Amino acid sequence: MAHDHTPADTAAAPDLLLGRIRDIPDFPKPGILFKDITPLLNDPAALAATVAGLAEPFRDAGVDHVVGLEARGFIFGAPVALALGAGFVPARKAGKLPAAVIEQPYDLEYGTATVEIHADAVTEGSRVLIVDDVLATGGTGRAAVDLVRKAGGTVVGFSVLMELTALGGRERLSDVEPHALLSV
Amino acid sequence: MAHDHTPADTAAAPDLLLGRIRDIPDFPKPGILFKDITPLLNDPAALAATVAGLAEPFRDAGVDHVVGLEARGFIFGAPVALALGAGFVPARKAGKLPAAVIEQPYDLEYGTATVEIHADAVTEGSRVLIVDDVLATGGTGRAAVDLVRKAGGTVVGFSVLMELTALGGRERLSDVEPHALLSV
Repeated sequence: MAHDHTPADTAAAPDLLLGRIRDIPDFPKPGILFKDITPLLNDPAALAATVAGLAEPFRDAGVDHVVGLEARGFIFGAPVALALGAGFVPARKAGKLPAAVIEQPYDLEYGTATVEIHADAVTEGSRVLIVDDVLATGGTGRAAVDLVRKAGGTVVGFSVLMELTALGGRERLSDVEPHALLSV
Repeated sequence: MAHDHTPADTAAAPDLLLGRIRDIPDFPKPGILFKDITPLLNDPAALAATVAGLAEPFRDAGVDHVVGLEARGFIFGAPVALALGAGFVPARKAGKLPAAVIEQPYDLEYGTATVEIHADAVTEGSRVLIVDDVLATGGTGRAAVDLVRKAGGTVVGFSVLMELTALGGRERLSDVEPHALLSV
């Protein structure tokens, strides 16, 4: 296979990215139209443009840690950390991290879940950028912001590839003004 | 916080990396000494050196796709794909990918599990590098290699941060000669 992609521009081109996201009907359950980003991940130019676009507004923000939300937030979070010269902190579901954690519960459609980071991952007064793939209802994102603050960190931004505007996540995260490369 | 790290060298320094991995006793269950890589991820220089070291031997290998194994393999796989100008393909546990998949079962200590990629992710004849954090028994890695071949891809390498030599994973993956930055 030839690598015949054009070089990524640091200003992510919305058409390039949107063209690499596909709709999957009835996933994970009937009636849900799932936005599948795997074609974007598998396109070198689109992947590079996404990472550049997620990092760009925060280049001069003095970011110490990038927190990525399990599991798809890991895919973008680590390269954004590299781009910003920051450390990467995985925020995981309950029971996955091996050392002492701090945790934040959040509501699901039925029941609750918990997001965790290691207790020593975000130091008091450090500057934190949170990265994820999609902003939907904002439930996980809200928990992540509260978790970072509980750890003593300052949330300097919340950066996502795609915002699903109808689900109202931006309102739940109005205090951190989410940065989204795409709004659908 | 100051960013007072020295720049990452493309030849990953083993001492830098090893010093950022900590032992956690009795995780995930009594008697297991877990190698926790999160301090490494949270150190910008160590993270950059790891990604550079994972990618380095494959710079001229014409890699089309980097397959990262859920979940910690996502953290290294995506930046390695960026470093090589390749696409990133997430290999996930059963039921997580939304479109049509191909799957490969593998044995666990008790029972079996399945690793999946999208059926259209790895095209016939393409060149694939598999990335993960740790090579332990090699069970998941063996399944990933077989899965990529089932999809028609050529496995050009298998790159990990750390090999746990006592567990014999290298023998199970001898046909792909795993590249490990650290052996413990």
